[in-house]
Amino acid sequence: MRAMARRNYFSTEAFDRSGHLRRDPEWLNARLADTATRLLLLRRSLIPVNSERRLMLVAAVVTDLDHAADGVVFLGLDPDGSAVFAVDVDGDGRADLISVLPEGHTFVELRGAAASLPRDEGHRAAYASAMLTWHRRHRWCGTCGAPTVPDWAGHIRRCTGCGAEHFPRTDPVIIVVVTAGDHCLLGRQAAWPTSMFSALAGFVEPGESLEDAVAREVWEETGVRVSDVVYNSSQPWPFPLSLMLGFHASAGDKPVDVTVDETEIEDARWFTRDELAKGIADGGLTVPPPFSIARTIIDAWLEEGA
Amino acid sequence: MRAMARRNYFSTEAFDRSGHLRRDPEWLNARLADTATRLLLLRRSLIPVNSERRLMLVAAVVTDLDHAADGVVFLGLDPDGSAVFAVDVDGDGRADLISVLPEGHTFVELRGAAASLPRDEGHRAAYASAMLTWHRRHRWCGTCGAPTVPDWAGHIRRCTGCGAEHFPRTDPVIIVVVTAGDHCLLGRQAAWPTSMFSALAGFVEPGESLEDAVAREVWEETGVRVSDVVYNSSQPWPFPLSLMLGFHASAGDKPVDVTVDETEIEDARWFTRDELAKGIADGGLTVPPPFSIARTIIDAWLEEGA
Repeated sequence: MRAMARRNYFSTEAFDRSGHLRRDPEWLNARLADTATRLLLLRRSLIPVNSERRLMLVAAVVTDLDHAADGVVFLGLDPDGSAVFAVDVDGDGRADLISVLPEGHTFVELRGAAASLPRDEGHRAAYASAMLTWHRRHRWCGTCGAPTVPDWAGHIRRCTGCGAEHFPRTDPVIIVVVTAGDHCLLGRQAAWPTSMFSALAGFVEPGESLEDAVAREVWEETGVRVSDVVYNSSQPWPFPLSLMLGFHASAGDKPVDVTVDETEIEDARWFTRDELAKGIADGGLTVPPPFSIARTIIDAWLEEGA
Repeated sequence: MRAMARRNYFSTEAFDRSGHLRRDPEWLNARLADTATRLLLLRRSLIPVNSERRLMLVAAVVTDLDHAADGVVFLGLDPDGSAVFAVDVDGDGRADLISVLPEGHTFVELRGAAASLPRDEGHRAAYASAMLTWHRRHRWCGTCGAPTVPDWAGHIRRCTGCGAEHFPRTDPVIIVVVTAGDHCLLGRQAAWPTSMFSALAGFVEPGESLEDAVAREVWEETGVRVSDVVYNSSQPWPFPLSLMLGFHASAGDKPVDVTVDETEIEDARWFTRDELAKGIADGGLTVPPPFSIARTIIDAWLEEGA
């Protein structure tokens, strides 16, 4: 039997990106002059929320925005047909845009706000944040060094020198709960609170499948060999540009010795299901928050044994 | 029950990347002066093969290579402990390196050669090609426009202006066989031979899970809504820098009308299992070669009905 993947936080639900409209300059500029259009104003990775920590979008009352300007990205259409754009307010001459936001707004880190934003708001914020981060990091052409300019409503950058087309960057990262019988292997980084453990993770390298990357990363960080690498689900992770790919993998019937590579992690340890469930329940152990795929794959393993 | 993913061509098998050695300049330079070390010489995406179309590696007899030079990448260790490096012979002052290759070698496109290379050779060639392509495309910093220089034996580039660290780029691409009862949906591009059809595919966008990207891409290209998006396996795809993520998805019990977006594909059509199997067998239909994940997921669906 094949199981459908769980839909993780930050993912789409039902937002219509309408990719074909990205190449329609007239339609785009008409939308930017339409008060039904909604703007999501970002300051780098900071998002605007109201006093109830809900995402604030504003009407497109500012008519001098151009679809081809740097820091303006067409995100898609709301269910009512209204266009939604992301706008980097730290771009040239945009500081005034902040005055459009109603009183009581604050700019907060997306990661901290994610726990309180409804899923559809979390998705838009993640999508907008990743797009604007990509633009800030690709203003020059890596091939020839000339400036690049945005096109297709912010979904491509074109080199003014060699003409190369540059597309948004997304970095695949594997994240894995390694199991051995009734035990699972979790690790922790030195910068984390001392009670915190999570699934092992690392960037996929060129020339690797996801399954290869899982096996290599677990081996490098803990000296443990895994087999039966099984996909669970995926999650866009805009901190800054990642795509998390969640797995379970088996290291056999019972825990083997762990050799921690301290350049990568501070510690890695086997936990029984009971130990993990009780530690989470009584606060003795801290695991990543419910909106993270790390938690999805940890919980999936706990539930398997329930 | 959870099924382990099939290992696709170009993926690792058992090559030891020894990532921790990338940051050891003395060890790296000693290896480049060691005749046990093997070099894989590439000319852009062309790889050297002998008359039997096997990948040719040469001994590191050229002692003036430096681990920190542009176009030199430490790939890993052979099973016998020998180091393997990729070298871009089209780099500055490297034309002479070609004379190191034995007579009878030719440089051929990796894609064309893949069918005849054993898996371990296919993996190295794919890994090397992707790394060298990444270097050629990231010689300037996208954030500030200053030149970048390689470090960690070619596994990172550092900006000489703002100090930003740039890591290899890998673009996630979903590829999916959509099914409806005993039918599957395949599409074709205008540039392909007229008898050729394949699985639908497209780049994952920022803010999307893999499952979101599958649903969006199928909807955009064919107007078909899918559910039950199920992962099959993955494949590094160095043409030039992709990572293919293979899925099956269901469009219900029976085929629905298809509305082809001709800016993306030329045609898309439902095939029965019989039609597809017979077309492949008698040559009336062309599907991608056995080394591609497109073929893996097409064959997996055919076998399910066998």
